[in-house]
This record gives sequence, C-alpha cells and structure tokens, in this order.
Amino acid sequence: MKKLKNDLFIRACKREETERTPIWIMRQAGRYMPEYRAVRGKYDFLTMCKTPELATEVTLQPIDLIGVDAAIIFSDILVVPEAMGMFLEMHEGKGPIFHKPIRTEEAANDLKQIDPSKDLKYVLDAISLTKKELNNRVPLIGFSGSPWTLLTYMVEGRGSKNFSEIKKLIYNNPKLAHSLLDRISVAVADYLSAQISAGADAVQIFDTWGGILSPDDFKEFSLNYIEKVISLLKKKDEPVIVFAKGVHYAIKKLAKSGADVLGLDWTMDIGDVRKEVGKRVALQGNLDPTVLYAPQEKIKEEVKRVLKSFGKGNGHIFNLGHGVLPDIYPENVKTLVNFVKELSPAFHKSGKK
Amino acid sequence: MKKLKNDLFIRACKREETERTPIWIMRQAGRYMPEYRAVRGKYDFLTMCKTPELATEVTLQPIDLIGVDAAIIFSDILVVPEAMGMFLEMHEGKGPIFHKPIRTEEAANDLKQIDPSKDLKYVLDAISLTKKELNNRVPLIGFSGSPWTLLTYMVEGRGSKNFSEIKKLIYNNPKLAHSLLDRISVAVADYLSAQISAGADAVQIFDTWGGILSPDDFKEFSLNYIEKVISLLKKKDEPVIVFAKGVHYAIKKLAKSGADVLGLDWTMDIGDVRKEVGKRVALQGNLDPTVLYAPQEKIKEEVKRVLKSFGKGNGHIFNLGHGVLPDIYPENVKTLVNFVKELSPAFHKSGKK
Repeated sequence: MKKLKNDLFIRACKREETERTPIWIMRQAGRYMPEYRAVRGKYDFLTMCKTPELATEVTLQPIDLIGVDAAIIFSDILVVPEAMGMFLEMHEGKGPIFHKPIRTEEAANDLKQIDPSKDLKYVLDAISLTKKELNNRVPLIGFSGSPWTLLTYMVEGRGSKNFSEIKKLIYNNPKLAHSLLDRISVAVADYLSAQISAGADAVQIFDTWGGILSPDDFKEFSLNYIEKVISLLKKKDEPVIVFAKGVHYAIKKLAKSGADVLGLDWTMDIGDVRKEVGKRVALQGNLDPTVLYAPQEKIKEEVKRVLKSFGKGNGHIFNLGHGVLPDIYPENVKTLVNFVKELSPAFHKSGKK
Repeated sequence: MKKLKNDLFIRACKREETERTPIWIMRQAGRYMPEYRAVRGKYDFLTMCKTPELATEVTLQPIDLIGVDAAIIFSDILVVPEAMGMFLEMHEGKGPIFHKPIRTEEAANDLKQIDPSKDLKYVLDAISLTKKELNNRVPLIGFSGSPWTLLTYMVEGRGSKNFSEIKKLIYNNPKLAHSLLDRISVAVADYLSAQISAGADAVQIFDTWGGILSPDDFKEFSLNYIEKVISLLKKKDEPVIVFAKGVHYAIKKLAKSGADVLGLDWTMDIGDVRKEVGKRVALQGNLDPTVLYAPQEKIKEEVKRVLKSFGKGNGHIFNLGHGVLPDIYPENVKTLVNFVKELSPAFHKSGKK
C-alpha cells in the first residue's frame, strides 16, 4: 500500500503531531451538493449504494470540490439489516422503511448471519474502486451503524418520535434484545473488518440513537455492544471512531471502549471533554450543523470558538456535530473547510513556524 | 386562602422536610386515560383548553384516579402565541400548526402584547374553577413555554426535525430574534403572574427546545430569557420550576436562574446533579417515560433506582423525564405512583419512624 499524500486525518486520530487540524464532514457526499443531486436525479438512493461506480463518484465529489481531508464511503447504515434479510424501502419524504419490523422471536429467527464478502460485496467493491480513484490523496473512512442503532431501526421499522417499540422490547423481552444485539455485533464487526481489508483507512461507528436511553440502559444495550464490535475487529492500526449522539453522560465510558476517536455532537463543550478524556482518545467535532446557515463572518467566529475550546495541541479532527443538512449552500461548506485550514495552524506547534 | 391538605409537593419544592417523596406526572391529564379520551371524544383540543369546565374536569381526573400529589392545569403552551395574534390550528396527526409562521420584521410587528386578564381569561377562569373544585386537596401548578421554546414554534410553524428556520433566524437576524424573545418574555411573565393571582400554587416553565442549541447559544437565546421571566414574576412564595429538556450542559447555570426547582430529563443522573446543585434548588424527575411500557416489577426496580440515585433527604419531586406517552396503560401510571408512595418514606427522616 502506498503512503497517503495527506495523512493529517490519520495522524490526528492517533493524537500525533499535525501542522493543522484536519476536517471532514458527516454526510459530506450528500444532497447539499448540486453535483450529488445530478447523480441522484438519475438513480435511486439504493442503486447508488449498490453500484460501485456511482458510490465512488459521489464519494469523491467533496474531495475534489470541497477540499476535505478524508473521504467517507457513500453508503447507508441500513445495508446491514438488509443483508440480514430485511426488506428495505427508501421512501421519498418518509425516509427508510422496513415493512416487516423485527418484534418477535420468530421474526428474529428469520434473520441470517451475513457474509460481507458476498452479502455486502458491493460496498467492498466501492471501497476498492474509491481507493484506486483516490490514488492516496486522502484516507478513506468506512462505517457502520452501532448494534443498538441498527436494532432500533429494525424494531421500529421507520422513523420514530418516542421509540416505543424498541423500548417495549428491551423492557419486556430483554433476552431477545440481547440475543439480537449479539448477532448484530458479530455482523457489524465482520462488516467493518471486511471494509478494512478492502482498503478503508479508518472506520466510524454511528450510534445515532444511543441518546434515547438512560445512562444505565445505554451501558447495557449500546455501550457493551460497541465494545464487543471493537474487540472483534480484525485490523492492523486503522483508527476506530465512535460517534454517539446525545450520549453526554457516557463520555468517560466511551473513552475506554477501545475507540481511538470520539465524535461529539454540538451540545458538548469539546474543551471540557478534552480535559476529561483527551489523554486517551482523539476528539472529532463539533460545530452545530445549522451554523452553516449563517453568514460567513459568523461561520468564521464559530470555527474559532471550536478551535479555541479544544485548545492548542493534537488529537482534534474538525467536523460538524451531526450530518450536514441538505439545504445548506455548498459555498458555506467550502468556506467552513477553508476557515479550518486558515485558522487551525495557530493551534499546532509545527503550524506556527 | 385555606391551607393545603397535601402540601408535600410545595414543601419538596422548597427543600423542606417531607415524610415521603411527592409525585406528579408531566401530561398526567392526557390521552393515556380513558376518562380523558371520553371528554376529548366530544370536544376538540382547543375547545377543551378554552372551556373552563372541561379544562377543570380533565385537570382533576388524575388527582382522583391516579393519586398524584399535585394538579397541573390542562392547557397548552401555544395559547400564548395564539393570544399574541397567531392563528393556531391543532391538526389531528400532524400536531399544532401555525400557518403563518413569524420569519420577518413585518410579521413580528403584527404580534400584539397580551393582556392575560383578557386574552387568556379562559386559562385564569379554569385555574379559579379548578382551585375551587380541588378544595385544597393538592396544590395546582400553572405553566408556560419558555420564550425560546415559544419562539421556536412561532418561527418553525410546525414540528421540525432540524429546526432550520429558527436557526436561520438567530444566525442571520439575531437582533430580530432578541427583540421577539424580549417581547415574549414579558408576555410569559405577565401570563404566569396572572396564573399565580388566579390561584396557581406553583408554576413550571417548559423549555422543550433548549436542547437543540449549543451551550453558548442556549445561554444567549434561552437561559437569558428564562431568567428575565423569573425576575419579572409577580409572586409571593410560589415555587418556580424550570424544565429544560436536553440541556445537560447548563445545569449549573439553570440552578442560578432564580428557579426553585429544576426538572430533569431521563438522560441525567439525578444523584450527580444533586451533588452539583442540590444545595441551591430542588430536583424534579426523572424516570424514562418508556419504562411505563415495562412489567410492574421493572417499574418498581426503576423507581428504586431513581430514589436511590437522589438518595436520602429532601428536595426531590418524583416525575417522569418527559410527558407520559399516550399509549401507556393507566394501570402502570397508578402503579408508578403507588411504588413512589410505598418506597420513598425510607428516604426521608420523618418517613422512617
């Protein structure tokens, strides 16, 4: 494997010295970009996920056009439940829907254990192709949903306000919940390991729905399985990022999960978190995604605020605190990236020369 | 005014000694009760709010049937923007809708300052009538949305996922946002003062949407105006409760806001919060509302966990960490109340006799 030309992101994940703070953006290959919408106009979402050439094309767009320091493979966290045998429909306006959610032991028994090299070959092919096209310009990130977040979707079947169905499951049949989480953990670990084998330089675990749980329930139903996934990963030294939204109460525990990097949402003070756990993990984040609605001067001010809050030194990967919203001006995303490149060297030793 | 027969709630708000932990439940007069649905089947939601006899009837239901230690007047936070001149439609399934949201200075100029004794007389009449019917059995809580939460609804116009419109407003026209928040604060303070004059024994400020803000933005756009409301209140010694959902990062600041009680959502460890701020304020909460989907043994276990987490001593009002969900069995709500009554005396001096 050739050496990366821009390895700022990888070095920051390992808390090694960098001359500036690297930046990538959750959902950077997405609807806010006219170039993405041009492709999306011709193909539906799942076709894009399942056609390596198309997935590669949109994965590369923000590298060329926005100038981020890492690519993240274009895909969706729900390809794993689909590979386990669930019928996934991407519904325009309503979001993803599983018409037969998993709520009984019978339904759970119908799920199959996946072999990523067959069942999710299209993702691995997209990773190989993207790596080739990237030609080592920047690293490529693979990803998966956390076991808890995948189970939540599998049980709810669709977007939810109160998450009643998954809560009913964990309170009324915790045994079934744990057995499902166990199986999903193995699937996620196999899947992420296969992504690494295919060329991913780092992987991110998205725990989008951890924050709907009380602290004790989070430990029992989410954290334990994030730890299981990490412990099962077959990898060399590819960094593992855990992004658990709304889980302010478990930062210290997550820092001991085996993750190399914690992603923070915008309700956290990144400086406070660094004081608490910054000797153990790098931190990623955490600008409020809606700040990109603001005028450029305000964006600059907020970039400064996040950089200052983290403070001088290494181990910070700039990102939003959640995915970039579809109606943001691409120009503002570019502006954000440029401000990070302009302002962050002052926070690094070798950048101050 | 006659003395309350059961003043546990009021004493707990003031961190005075009580023989057990009082309990009431957010949205206790609501759809989970068949007796409520029987009334609601005959009248639409706003008619119920605006007819003192109906509002009184459903306010009293959980006192008689569930056995809670406080009543909360049946109403809605959106009656304030409606009184300011906005047309409010309660849409079955879609929730409340303002068809003409406030997004410009012109729209803002059309809002009028309210006189609660005229514009919200129906709420004050409902409070007087409820006080009479309660006959001092338990105290009556009045309430309002926080200025930030009301502004969010007024600007978004309907339920929102990303809160793009209100964020655009604060980032692009903070001056207009502040001027609106100022005016809403005066309206809320006048409204809560009028509720106290009409007989409310305590008032709660709901900041449902504080948690969508970063810590700095919360201070600037929500906390400042909660403090303004509290400072403007005309009251004797009626306790003020502030419930700010998802605002884990501002607990210490909220404890200095002038509030007597902080309501906590279920992601907070109530014991940790007590250690941080319990000498200054009482705490209310914070069972995960979905625990009421669980079997009775699990509910009991979780009640114990919350009581233990708060620990021995005064200044705890038991509640859910958010409103009770509409599809909960009323029997489980009753069970919750009974467990708190049964288990909490062990956590109080005078209860241990």
